[in-house]
Amino acid sequence: MQEAFSAPARLLMGPGPVNADPRVLRAMSQQMIGQYDPAILALMDDTQALYRRVFETGNRQTFLVDGTSRAGIEALLISIIRPGDPVLVASAGRFGMLLTELARRAGAQVTVIDRPWGEVFTLEEIEAGLRKCHPRILLTVHGDTSTTMLQPLEGVGELCREYGALFYTDATATLGGNLLPVDALGLDAVSAGLQKCLGGPAGTSPVTVSPRYEELCRRRTSIELGSRESSDEDGPDPVIPSNYFDMVQLMEWWGSRRLNHHTEATTALYAAHECARLLVAEGVAAAAERHRRAGEALLAGVRAMGLQPFGDLSHRMNNVLGVVIPEGIDGAAVQRALLTNFGLEIGSSFGPLRGRIWRIGTMGANARRDCVLTTLAALESVLLRMGHRLTAGAAVRAAWEYCDDAGL
Amino acid sequence: MQEAFSAPARLLMGPGPVNADPRVLRAMSQQMIGQYDPAILALMDDTQALYRRVFETGNRQTFLVDGTSRAGIEALLISIIRPGDPVLVASAGRFGMLLTELARRAGAQVTVIDRPWGEVFTLEEIEAGLRKCHPRILLTVHGDTSTTMLQPLEGVGELCREYGALFYTDATATLGGNLLPVDALGLDAVSAGLQKCLGGPAGTSPVTVSPRYEELCRRRTSIELGSRESSDEDGPDPVIPSNYFDMVQLMEWWGSRRLNHHTEATTALYAAHECARLLVAEGVAAAAERHRRAGEALLAGVRAMGLQPFGDLSHRMNNVLGVVIPEGIDGAAVQRALLTNFGLEIGSSFGPLRGRIWRIGTMGANARRDCVLTTLAALESVLLRMGHRLTAGAAVRAAWEYCDDAGL
Repeated sequence: MQEAFSAPARLLMGPGPVNADPRVLRAMSQQMIGQYDPAILALMDDTQALYRRVFETGNRQTFLVDGTSRAGIEALLISIIRPGDPVLVASAGRFGMLLTELARRAGAQVTVIDRPWGEVFTLEEIEAGLRKCHPRILLTVHGDTSTTMLQPLEGVGELCREYGALFYTDATATLGGNLLPVDALGLDAVSAGLQKCLGGPAGTSPVTVSPRYEELCRRRTSIELGSRESSDEDGPDPVIPSNYFDMVQLMEWWGSRRLNHHTEATTALYAAHECARLLVAEGVAAAAERHRRAGEALLAGVRAMGLQPFGDLSHRMNNVLGVVIPEGIDGAAVQRALLTNFGLEIGSSFGPLRGRIWRIGTMGANARRDCVLTTLAALESVLLRMGHRLTAGAAVRAAWEYCDDAGL
Repeated sequence: MQEAFSAPARLLMGPGPVNADPRVLRAMSQQMIGQYDPAILALMDDTQALYRRVFETGNRQTFLVDGTSRAGIEALLISIIRPGDPVLVASAGRFGMLLTELARRAGAQVTVIDRPWGEVFTLEEIEAGLRKCHPRILLTVHGDTSTTMLQPLEGVGELCREYGALFYTDATATLGGNLLPVDALGLDAVSAGLQKCLGGPAGTSPVTVSPRYEELCRRRTSIELGSRESSDEDGPDPVIPSNYFDMVQLMEWWGSRRLNHHTEATTALYAAHECARLLVAEGVAAAAERHRRAGEALLAGVRAMGLQPFGDLSHRMNNVLGVVIPEGIDGAAVQRALLTNFGLEIGSSFGPLRGRIWRIGTMGANARRDCVLTTLAALESVLLRMGHRLTAGAAVRAAWEYCDDAGL
């Protein structure tokens, strides 16, 4: 008999997925319960309540999509974009391109505004885009891991209301590690994932939508054959082309009607609940601050090592740092050496940044002093072994001092 | 601080999800590894090889869709059905209705043939349907849990080839507990789930497609912005409207290209691998036989209790038995009493069968002697307490004798 898979020990310090909090893995390993069990219905309600706190929102429609982060994105986009709708995408990285792709597949008339990778949009640039195409929805990426940049969203909600647009952001890589007060920012739709700052495994996407989104979405109501009652009437707008990602049906599954739709992914629900419970217990602001400090500690170390951080540092994400691969160093070889000799993973990036930068993450359960110091020590060791000139010990010392001062 | 969720102990003897094999939960609770880690790439390859054995197929394109069972169904349908394509659905239950629904949302011209719930189609009926609409694809349900019937698929593959149609079956509820030799049956596309006979949690859908399906599907190739290389050209057929469910991109993610698409759901992959490993170790035929015996033991007990099994027993699934709720008994009250007093779950059904039958499952890790006997003892106790007349002890005795004789 073939042996069971045994996962090698890894310290995951790339752009995500990262190591899951052991408490989340423990929650996931509980035995199944039925999907109409009173215990699971209570758990679903509680999960919704917890994610409202994580998203800092009063949105009733706050729940999980059973799929990886881009499942959540696609559900939010395909449920609101009707064929021919004008859509504006603010794209400055790989995940901005994904939004463009998804909007196009949903049949939108897509207008894209862009910035070089490593930069963010100003309010004026976003307003110019809104004025140009008067979109049904503006699609933004809160933190585009491909560039490590954090798009400021303050003021964008007001602009969207002024121009009659809904406002979406992809918070896959930021939620839980950067502040994202959904209601205060006037966001209408946000999706996320567990495998970054929430410290869980990939495979579940928390989403939240505003009453305004819900109202427009419900115009596309079409309860599926097999679940519909004689009182169920179709809405006036075109049916959502996906059944799995039909937000109206998902609302009715998570809501008091408990409409039969997909089979709930029970163990993923356990994980998502535990991620949110831990985050709420720590406090959303405290968790963001912990991520900020871990990111600063890493930055201090990287600079002390003589390496150059990537991009507009005044707008970087707390939880992922871009590091320019020094001249004469084979970035992929460094990554392989880290994995082989230290069991430690960091990432590179995509497109124009592939092989040009490393991406080092400090997020979720790994936004910790020991993870930062271990990473710096290992990276320094590999670079020294490859003949790169640097002051041995400086990186760890700088980060250690930062940690002592800042309290991490 | 709010306490962690603690799942109540349940013996899940409904139509699924059922209890996961503890070895699967253990596999899932392993720590994360990165999605380009050599260890995960090897695990993905091995998972594909194992599922080829589970599906009894040589199909190269055999992998997992990260979502619940209907995610797998939707991926297979939306990737092959182009707007306006004629599609034939053989529908005799809730999940036949789901196929109709999904095909319509994909823009198909759908022709439905149906049978009363509790019956199956003859080859002649299927051929008449094929002759009538010459579909691009025939959609069938191998085992429709809503009715507990197993649709015989022998000969259907030949008919589909004769009429130039692809041949799909939904094996969510049957794979691993009933024989389904994909290649021998001439199937072009099959999807399944873990939460039934495979003894895992819901949330991952194993799928397999034939070279013929792959070839047609690749005519819709459109590698997404952000992953495409200059050598990537779009195919001649219309782009698949979903990105998440784009089978071509999933093939390139699971294949040697390892095209960046979704973030792999690592822990779900661990679970799916372990489910297949255990099934292959037991033997696909042996597992089906175990399910058959568990189903027969349950049937013997149900009959000895004086209850009437539902539907065409010559075509029932091994792993779910329909039981007609006796006159004068409140079926839902029985289910509640079982859950409250015995921690044991059985199900009812949908639509015309809601409140008319119970569905009792014996599948995955629960296709065992002790699960069957415990269920019969508990059900008898509840019925007696509710004043239903039956011969106390007869059900367990009959099932016990069957188990001794048949070896379960």
